[in-house]
Amino acid sequence: MSKQELVVLGQDDTGGCCPALLTTPLAEGQAETLAKVFKALGDPVRLRLLSMIASRAGGEVCVCDLTPAFDLSQPTISHHLKLLRQAGLIASERRGTWVYYRLLPEMTDRLAQILTRPAGQPPTATATTGAAS
Amino acid sequence: MSKQELVVLGQDDTGGCCPALLTTPLAEGQAETLAKVFKALGDPVRLRLLSMIASRAGGEVCVCDLTPAFDLSQPTISHHLKLLRQAGLIASERRGTWVYYRLLPEMTDRLAQILTRPAGQPPTATATTGAAS
Repeated sequence: MSKQELVVLGQDDTGGCCPALLTTPLAEGQAETLAKVFKALGDPVRLRLLSMIASRAGGEVCVCDLTPAFDLSQPTISHHLKLLRQAGLIASERRGTWVYYRLLPEMTDRLAQILTRPAGQPPTATATTGAAS
Repeated sequence: MSKQELVVLGQDDTGGCCPALLTTPLAEGQAETLAKVFKALGDPVRLRLLSMIASRAGGEVCVCDLTPAFDLSQPTISHHLKLLRQAGLIASERRGTWVYYRLLPEMTDRLAQILTRPAGQPPTATATTGAAS
């Protein structure tokens, strides 16, 4: 994902923070950009990798600590990590033999915001428990 | 997506609301279930459809009002809507000639929660502007 696309994902047509997925029909360009990020999350191995990276106390994980959790080859794991990186969800840094990964919380924050209903929007008739309003 | 899978998505191992994507490594089963929902969102046409449905004032959209916005055939649009429905993101109801779609906000609420950093978690060194804490 290019820097320009990341910028697009970070702004809506009114100059606000995020595309308004739930309140305004998405423009084609916004949908293209956002779909790439969701597509990166649409794989169980990548989701597990992301959660392992995000939940690491020190905020950083060596790829050498990620690979043993999977019954997959190192190149396959690296490919999945590359897709997460291209989607702007994680960043990497090579130090010596190993590459270290960390979460880019700006992107998960944006996705959370995009998926959050605006304050004051009433739950629909089908919304049931747990919706403290 | 089966009812059982939806239940799994709605609970973590500790009986809480949601899988803890950002605080605990996801279990394999949770990752499989969650990936299906993100995969459904990982397509620009489906994202635009979802935003058109979610942002409709009356809360419901006739498929006849969705199709003209796309340069795609009715069966293609219906296929995309089916994938969103199977992911638990929208519901449909046939009335007479047409099928009507509405958002299932429980699912977008869950995804937003899954992607939200727990309160009190400090932004990383790379988190810059806009992270009011």
